[in-house]
Formats: sequence, structure tokens, C-alpha cells
Amino acid sequence: MTETEFDPGAVRALAFDIFGTTVDWRTGVAEQVTRVARRRGVELDGEAFADAWRGKYLPSMGRVNGGERRWAYLDVLHRESLDELLEQHGVAAAFDDASRGELVRAWHRLPAWEDAAEGLARLRGRYVVAALSNGGFALLTHLVKAAGLPFDCILSAELAQRYKPDPAPYLTAARLLDVEPGELLMVACHGWDLAGARGAGLRTAFVARPLENGPAGGADGAAEVAGEVAAADFGDLADRLGCP
Amino acid sequence: MTETEFDPGAVRALAFDIFGTTVDWRTGVAEQVTRVARRRGVELDGEAFADAWRGKYLPSMGRVNGGERRWAYLDVLHRESLDELLEQHGVAAAFDDASRGELVRAWHRLPAWEDAAEGLARLRGRYVVAALSNGGFALLTHLVKAAGLPFDCILSAELAQRYKPDPAPYLTAARLLDVEPGELLMVACHGWDLAGARGAGLRTAFVARPLENGPAGGADGAAEVAGEVAAADFGDLADRLGCP
Repeated sequence: MTETEFDPGAVRALAFDIFGTTVDWRTGVAEQVTRVARRRGVELDGEAFADAWRGKYLPSMGRVNGGERRWAYLDVLHRESLDELLEQHGVAAAFDDASRGELVRAWHRLPAWEDAAEGLARLRGRYVVAALSNGGFALLTHLVKAAGLPFDCILSAELAQRYKPDPAPYLTAARLLDVEPGELLMVACHGWDLAGARGAGLRTAFVARPLENGPAGGADGAAEVAGEVAAADFGDLADRLGCP
Repeated sequence: MTETEFDPGAVRALAFDIFGTTVDWRTGVAEQVTRVARRRGVELDGEAFADAWRGKYLPSMGRVNGGERRWAYLDVLHRESLDELLEQHGVAAAFDDASRGELVRAWHRLPAWEDAAEGLARLRGRYVVAALSNGGFALLTHLVKAAGLPFDCILSAELAQRYKPDPAPYLTAARLLDVEPGELLMVACHGWDLAGARGAGLRTAFVARPLENGPAGGADGAAEVAGEVAAADFGDLADRLGCP
């Protein structure tokens, strides 16, 4: 981790990863899984189910980026993963189409980490702040609105029809924001996302989210992830970028 | 003008035109033209110049939609129109490249009509509210941010690489918001925009902006424009859509 050469003045816009970095997907999905399952007369461990669901996230997108399948929305990938998981848990018969749709939409409404809104508001005073996630444009619009996050605009892998860490979504974001890739700072808690951003020529900031995968789930740490800036949360990031 | 069959409950999202409908481009551009010209040692009638500049707007986009030229950003079209106008006014020599760039960016920072922010905030409580303009994505992001307008997301003709009133930007907006065209209400003060939206299957709301072209410039009125809803301003629109 070297921070020596980073110049906040060279940055014109910030792109934020959402799932894990800005919102606590695990708590949100677990609560909704537990609730919907109970209504369907089934007891499911919501947190373990959320972890298993999230575990299928990168592989399902990898099949799109690898050309094994055409572009598909994250909602479609989530639904396919859900169908598999319900089968594996032996509870497929208990979930009709409507309840599966409701579970897929759990990813549209997730709680923000408690430092997120205030940190974004500070960063927004100096930079254009954009959401840049693998979630679909509508999903992100709903999520950001419900969580009250003050982003200036929504960007999505959907606009490039390729998922992060492919270079296309990062470069599409820079083009739409009318900045050079080197003027755009990608903020994420995942090393794979920052590596993709760096490969596309973006600047990178790591934010630690040690509880993303739960108390025992582990998470990327600053020591393993190469980012130009490393911050403990969005407030610390605002401090490091000199935002009052 | 018939409002009889309009059902606000069938609408899920609102798309707002920006130049004229949400912001007062004439006042904003005129002030900036006058100021920059004076600094260059030239007296220009800012309002007349803004009118002439805006007069080249629809024809320049028509050449893109008509296939006479490839996609070009609104900034590029504005610059070409500006170059022509400065030549016609016999003041081309007084404006270097930097001052022309500054004038083009005048369109990135314009004052909102005074009812806009509050009306949007009310409408946002019930609907997803999006900017949908022929301005580029970055231009709109800057404009909305500077004017403090509480949109949920930015959409732009740039995302479809076709200008309104071509159907593509309206349909791209509906697709990205994950709504049917008939669930998206286009809000504009121009009959040509609402006609384009209706042609693409959207719902339409007319908002009167009688001063868009100045006190003597004329503007579309509800009597001439066929919209499913007609409102005096964004607050009146919120009333008509039942938003507290």
C-alpha cells in the first residue's frame, strides 16, 4: 500500500461500488430472506442463505464477461442463483414465482453503512460522486433513493453491457462523466474491483468494510489490497481527500 | 387538451425535460454571454444572442437524427453554432478558443425556475424522478448538481445516441428505469418533445413556461399542446398527481 503519489487535486469525480462498499447487503438480504421464508412456512438461516447467494455473484457475472452467455441483468442472474439455492436447500416447492420475485427485489432495498450518507455529502461538496455497480440502472436508482444516498448520478455496468472487473464499465463511466480515466477515483472494499479499475486506468481508493461478510466471514483488508488511498470509512475518505 | 383518462396510479416514473422546462436557459446564457463578451472588450446583447444560439438547437440536432451526420454531443453542436454566430456578429476575432469553451459551458450551469426544486422534492416522494434531456450526461450531471435539483437519476439522449424527439431516447429511458413506456410520464414545456414522447408510447404532461423565450418571445401554451396533464408549474403538477 503506497499513498505517496496520490494527488486529490488530480481527481475530478468519484465512482462508488455499492454492494458491500456503500450498503450492507448481508444484513438486508438476510432479514428479507428470513421474513419471506417464514411467511412461506419454512425456516431458513437468512445469513447463511445470503452468503451462499452472494457466493454465486462473481461466477455468474464471469460467465457473461467470458462470453459463455449474452448480457443478462443482475436481477436475472440473482433469480437463477436463487432457484438453484432453493433447490439445494430442498425448499423449492415452498416458493412460488411471486415470492421468488420478492426475494430478488430484496437486493433493490438494502441498508447503507451508517457513515455512507454523511461521507458522501462531504465528498459531494468537492467532487462529482457517482454510483458505479454491477447492479442494473433501475435497481441502483431504487436502492440509492430508498437509502437516501446523495449521489449526483447513477452509473451501472448495464450501460456498458459488461460487468466489473471488465474494463468497459469503468471506461464507460469516465466517458459519460466527461473525465479522463485518470481523473476518476474508484472507491471499493473489494480488491478485485480496484484491480479492474486500475487496469482501466482509473485511480483507486480502498475502503475497509470488515463486517461485509459477517463477523466471521472475513473481508479484504488494506494490507492485501493495492489502492492509492486506504480509508476506514467514507468519513475517513472525505478527510483524506481534504473535504470539509 | 383532454385530461379525462389520465390515471396517476398507472405512472411509475417521471422524466423531466431540462432546458426551458426545469431551468431558465435564456437568463443564464444571456448573463454569461454578456459577462464574457465584456471581458473580451465586446458589447453583445446577451439575450438576443442567447435566443439566436437556442434557435440553432433543433436544426443542429435534426441533422444528427436525420442521418446527415454521426452522433455528436450537444457541447459539440453548441460550439459549432457559437462559432457561426460569432462570425455573423462580426466579433469572431475577439473570442479565443478558451473563451468559446467557457461560453459552451454556460449551458452546464443555469438557474432553475423557482418552483422546480420544491416541486421535484414533492413528486419524488411518490415517483422516481429522472432528468431526460438532449444535453450530454456530464452536462446534465453538472447542471443538476449546481442547481440543487433533487433528481433520482440522470438520463440523457447521449445514452441512446439519438436526440429527442426521436423515439430512441424515450424508450431507452423506460428500459433503464425498468418501466413500460406507458408507465413513464414525460414532463416538458415544448409541444415537439411531448409529441415525440407520445409517439414512443409515453404518457405526457405539459408544464407552461411562458417566459422561456423572454417576455416577448412567445412559448407553447396548454391550448396548443396535447398533453394528458397540463400544469402551471412543478408545484401544480405535484398537486395534480396527488403528491403531498
